Amino acid sequence: MRIGILTGGGDCPGLNAVIRGIVKSAPENVEIIGIMHGWKGLVQGEYMKLTGDDVEGIHILGGTILGTSRINPFRSEEMRTKLEENIKKLGLDVIIGIGGDDTLSVTAKLASMGYRTVGVPKTIDNDVSNTDYTFGYHTAVNVGADAIDRLHSTAKSHGRVIFVELMGREAGWITLEAGLAAGAHLILIPEYPMTIEEIIGYINRRMKDKGYMIIATAEGFKPTELENVVGDKNHIDAFGHIKLGGIAHYMAEVVGERTGYDTRSMALGYLLRGGTPTAFDRLLGTRYGVRAMELVLKGDFGRMVALRGNEIVSIPLEYGIATKKLVPYEYYKLAQIFFG
Amino acid sequence: MRIGILTGGGDCPGLNAVIRGIVKSAPENVEIIGIMHGWKGLVQGEYMKLTGDDVEGIHILGGTILGTSRINPFRSEEMRTKLEENIKKLGLDVIIGIGGDDTLSVTAKLASMGYRTVGVPKTIDNDVSNTDYTFGYHTAVNVGADAIDRLHSTAKSHGRVIFVELMGREAGWITLEAGLAAGAHLILIPEYPMTIEEIIGYINRRMKDKGYMIIATAEGFKPTELENVVGDKNHIDAFGHIKLGGIAHYMAEVVGERTGYDTRSMALGYLLRGGTPTAFDRLLGTRYGVRAMELVLKGDFGRMVALRGNEIVSIPLEYGIATKKLVPYEYYKLAQIFFG
Amino acid sequence: MRIGILTGGGDCPGLNAVIRGIVKSAPENVEIIGIMHGWKGLVQGEYMKLTGDDVEGIHILGGTILGTSRINPFRSEEMRTKLEENIKKLGLDVIIGIGGDDTLSVTAKLASMGYRTVGVPKTIDNDVSNTDYTFGYHTAVNVGADAIDRLHSTAKSHGRVIFVELMGREAGWITLEAGLAAGAHLILIPEYPMTIEEIIGYINRRMKDKGYMIIATAEGFKPTELENVVGDKNHIDAFGHIKLGGIAHYMAEVVGERTGYDTRSMALGYLLRGGTPTAFDRLLGTRYGVRAMELVLKGDFGRMVALRGNEIVSIPLEYGIATKKLVPYEYYKLAQIFFG
Amino acid sequence: MRIGILTGGGDCPGLNAVIRGIVKSAPENVEIIGIMHGWKGLVQGEYMKLTGDDVEGIHILGGTILGTSRINPFRSEEMRTKLEENIKKLGLDVIIGIGGDDTLSVTAKLASMGYRTVGVPKTIDNDVSNTDYTFGYHTAVNVGADAIDRLHSTAKSHGRVIFVELMGREAGWITLEAGLAAGAHLILIPEYPMTIEEIIGYINRRMKDKGYMIIATAEGFKPTELENVVGDKNHIDAFGHIKLGGIAHYMAEVVGERTGYDTRSMALGYLLRGGTPTAFDRLLGTRYGVRAMELVLKGDFGRMVALRGNEIVSIPLEYGIATKKLVPYEYYKLAQIFFG
Repeated sequence: MRIGILTGGGDCPGLNAVIRGIVKSAPENVEIIGIMHGWKGLVQGEYMKLTGDDVEGIHILGGTILGTSRINPFRSEEMRTKLEENIKKLGLDVIIGIGGDDTLSVTAKLASMGYRTVGVPKTIDNDVSNTDYTFGYHTAVNVGADAIDRLHSTAKSHGRVIFVELMGREAGWITLEAGLAAGAHLILIPEYPMTIEEIIGYINRRMKDKGYMIIATAEGFKPTELENVVGDKNHIDAFGHIKLGGIAHYMAEVVGERTGYDTRSMALGYLLRGGTPTAFDRLLGTRYGVRAMELVLKGDFGRMVALRGNEIVSIPLEYGIATKKLVPYEYYKLAQIFFG
Repeated sequence: MRIGILTGGGDCPGLNAVIRGIVKSAPENVEIIGIMHGWKGLVQGEYMKLTGDDVEGIHILGGTILGTSRINPFRSEEMRTKLEENIKKLGLDVIIGIGGDDTLSVTAKLASMGYRTVGVPKTIDNDVSNTDYTFGYHTAVNVGADAIDRLHSTAKSHGRVIFVELMGREAGWITLEAGLAAGAHLILIPEYPMTIEEIIGYINRRMKDKGYMIIATAEGFKPTELENVVGDKNHIDAFGHIKLGGIAHYMAEVVGERTGYDTRSMALGYLLRGGTPTAFDRLLGTRYGVRAMELVLKGDFGRMVALRGNEIVSIPLEYGIATKKLVPYEYYKLAQIFFG
Repeated sequence: MRIGILTGGGDCPGLNAVIRGIVKSAPENVEIIGIMHGWKGLVQGEYMKLTGDDVEGIHILGGTILGTSRINPFRSEEMRTKLEENIKKLGLDVIIGIGGDDTLSVTAKLASMGYRTVGVPKTIDNDVSNTDYTFGYHTAVNVGADAIDRLHSTAKSHGRVIFVELMGREAGWITLEAGLAAGAHLILIPEYPMTIEEIIGYINRRMKDKGYMIIATAEGFKPTELENVVGDKNHIDAFGHIKLGGIAHYMAEVVGERTGYDTRSMALGYLLRGGTPTAFDRLLGTRYGVRAMELVLKGDFGRMVALRGNEIVSIPLEYGIATKKLVPYEYYKLAQIFFG
Repeated sequence: MRIGILTGGGDCPGLNAVIRGIVKSAPENVEIIGIMHGWKGLVQGEYMKLTGDDVEGIHILGGTILGTSRINPFRSEEMRTKLEENIKKLGLDVIIGIGGDDTLSVTAKLASMGYRTVGVPKTIDNDVSNTDYTFGYHTAVNVGADAIDRLHSTAKSHGRVIFVELMGREAGWITLEAGLAAGAHLILIPEYPMTIEEIIGYINRRMKDKGYMIIATAEGFKPTELENVVGDKNHIDAFGHIKLGGIAHYMAEVVGERTGYDTRSMALGYLLRGGTPTAFDRLLGTRYGVRAMELVLKGDFGRMVALRGNEIVSIPLEYGIATKKLVPYEYYKLAQIFFG
């Protein structure tokens, strides 16, 4: 049997553990073909054979040894044709797609066309439905919390308000949990908008009381006042998006002007997704990989792996890509206890 | 309302997050009394009032600001009497016991005597039934995996077999997951004994192939041959326990003699339970603390908090202390894929 | 004897180790007065007594327990008068100023007015003349190198060019050493300007060869072409400074447009100066503090401490503030070996 | 020109940075031969060619890609003959020996026999004369300080006295600096013996005052009382060496018996020398490697590289192996300020 595996979308700590898990748990008569750069590699016929030696020790490396891209092969008839030709040419009996919404949608589409596929969900944002956690997420939260820990001392020494921006366009998980773990004094996430007035209210109270403040801000948060603003001269573009510098930068500027406090901002950006995965993410990736191979060997196609409590289970591919898992109000309310 | 809280048994990263979670989520009319050194402090009347300022920032500190001990107050009539007197004297309406088997058993016993109690499970070994994870466990696994990562380079440079010993007398969770996450080449845990012969078999294969090896060993693992040995001259005492140096030391010596390989051992010991908790453990501790306070406010006594998937739930105190949660065979089998 | 100590300028990991070193090595008959927020506190009369208990364990904390500010008390006659009044009122026999150029200049000025002062140099940028290293610098380099390590995997997985910006307006030390330690593929520092053309040359070569690239950029670096540009529409303001987003952002945009490569940028900013100092910086801070107290007890005023090899020596205050220590060409040439 | 390089003795973080530094700075017409497993590989003719690609990214890895051993090729006439034969057979024009006393002695011996050699000093213990620091040392101190940081919280929570053992048979550098950086409450090093009585005096004072204590102990420390003891029944062998468990274990047992305090011990062992080097050690290794190649190209043989302040200099090979650099009394006295 020949199995093609590929990684698509943004990179995520733990991808290599999945790859190693698949390769190491393959029986002797199963050949693993690593397709390079996601679906792009399947369209262009770029691949490498993967043996046990190729994956020795890779579970502790960030990124993906297969490379990644964001191409949707169903975007054009030409790519689709080439994709199908290459599946045939490479003699792939099964395809394991490791990726987020987009990658899994293509994996599901292939399944609906009769190909034998299995999916492994990947999102650093932890917003996949029907799975407790996705790998990479814990690493991002740990790196984020560690960075916020570091900002405390400088904020305190200078009596500053620091806005720190973390990943999360639609789902505020990383910001909420890193902020809560590291004792941020206010947490702003897309799910629960707030007016600038309210934010300033929090700031005034905290500054009077303690004299410094850390505000964790998801990149997708937008103050209520800006919801319908487009084309503001300095910060909002014609589509209503925050311009250059991001929301933390915007908030630091606006709040600084309106309160007179010494405000600063910093965006953690790519730091959160790079580097060595935590033990939890290595384990989750490893277990996902082994379970994906089990699904293949059992002939359980059109499904993806998922975490439920301590168990790795499998669910239909559609369940994972149906809706985004957002931060529920109850959890946000818990975080509010620690605001201020 | 006055609530007494205490921490008992071995210390564990995340205890301070629980304490902070309880104190910060207490309504204004609720007073929190921190009892020092576990049940001992309640017997001897040692305590401190806890306000928001006392718990500022403590969630990132290891250990417990309340101190701890291993005393069972029901061991003597005298202690029991003093305990009850002090509950009365301090005017405690509720007691929250944070601890392992022993602490929770006393908490349950008090509940059966009519006191209003709530429990928060704590065990670095992750062996509490009916909860997915306990706080401190992820920190231990992370520190353990990080240490094993470090040992790889020295084992490889010198062509050595290194036995590294991790906590776990009865349950092999820490050893299994730290070992699996860090790519140990063999994992020995109490649940799945192995003969020295079998171990040497693994070693010979790996050494011939790769020339170095890391073996993660739980402190409670014992080779099958030793199961009934007592009073061996050098290593086994009259009760059948491994003497000074621990199992890793014993194995390194025995295997070194029998194979001629350059063997070494190292015990990670207290490193695993000390220091700053990971973000996950801070969050779990925080959420446990908040939930414990909710149980108190709802009048839901005789119960303990627990983690199920992403949710913090509550279960009867007895459920948590009933049986130890051991590593299931299926998980051990998965780890075996990566042996060698 | 009463000694006033204060910390001025930007915060820096190791400041608290200096404070603890001074307090712990003070003989019993010497009283230490901690002046809050640098010279501002001496102007406004804000201070706290410092005993051994106040400094217990603070050497592992970032920032400064005394707070800091950037005020020059000789800027106005009024401040200067208040400063002198408060020195008298507090009965300060000696003042130890811990800080950078500005703080040490005031310390030297006070010495020239007849006050008994001692200086401790502080600059995260490592650009103080006549001392091998300043505390905080190693922590910044370590945090910076760790961040660049993390960026490698994401750059490689996506085939990107990432510009990462580190502190250093005039001196490129942090960028050079963090970049060299973490294997950056090009290092841009203020001391050695380069044209955009040259930079693109490096990028084209590396991208053709390896397909990804990390470029460490000091905040004070400016491509040669921009040296005399002012008032460019998008990026350069009327004073010739790079506008919003910094040099890394600018370079990513310009290079992306001109080469078509997928470029990204990230600024490490405040991360480098926050958080727990490395062992080296704790030691250096501790030894500086102890040595400063020795100078006081010996009556060696008007001097500052400095590191020479393994030794803590003392030099006249003027020597430390005379000229900035920049990266010598020989060291930059060594770094060039690893470009590409 | 063909240059043979080898690493000998115990492994040390930074060795790979040296190797990379040598290879990357070699001109095109210079061929680098990596000899495997130290002198053993030169005797047995084991080697690999080293190109730029072989050393890509290795500076962040612990250990040595060349492997190491402790063999002295001048021990037997046979080995010596083979060594010389292989130098000829491989056509080695120059040999760069990277290692400690033993390796450098052989390097010097070869020089005295007319071979062209250069040395790079390596000792994790920092006890090489005439160089400020050796690579690997800072990593060991950082890992050691981090471990001691972790032990504080568990010692405090349980009210314990913890003896933690660090490397250092003759020189106490690692123990002194890691202990001082991490706030150990007593530091025991070989250079400054102390009686058990004195140690207990320190313990009684600290325990009465603060209730917990961390004691950093070098493996080579021995209490004064034991200096002439041999063949003690439990702990001292016939040669006067501490038996199984090491000095920390011994002290914990003896002090526990004599004081009644709850004592514990832990040996950090191999953790200190494994894993990713700090930025400082990567830089030092890199600069040593580049400088060694410069010496070769200049024809400056029979010399070794060394660090003086910020500069990499070269000194005669004999200077480095002449005497061990021990902790001077002045530095130990400084540490004493922080005891208790």
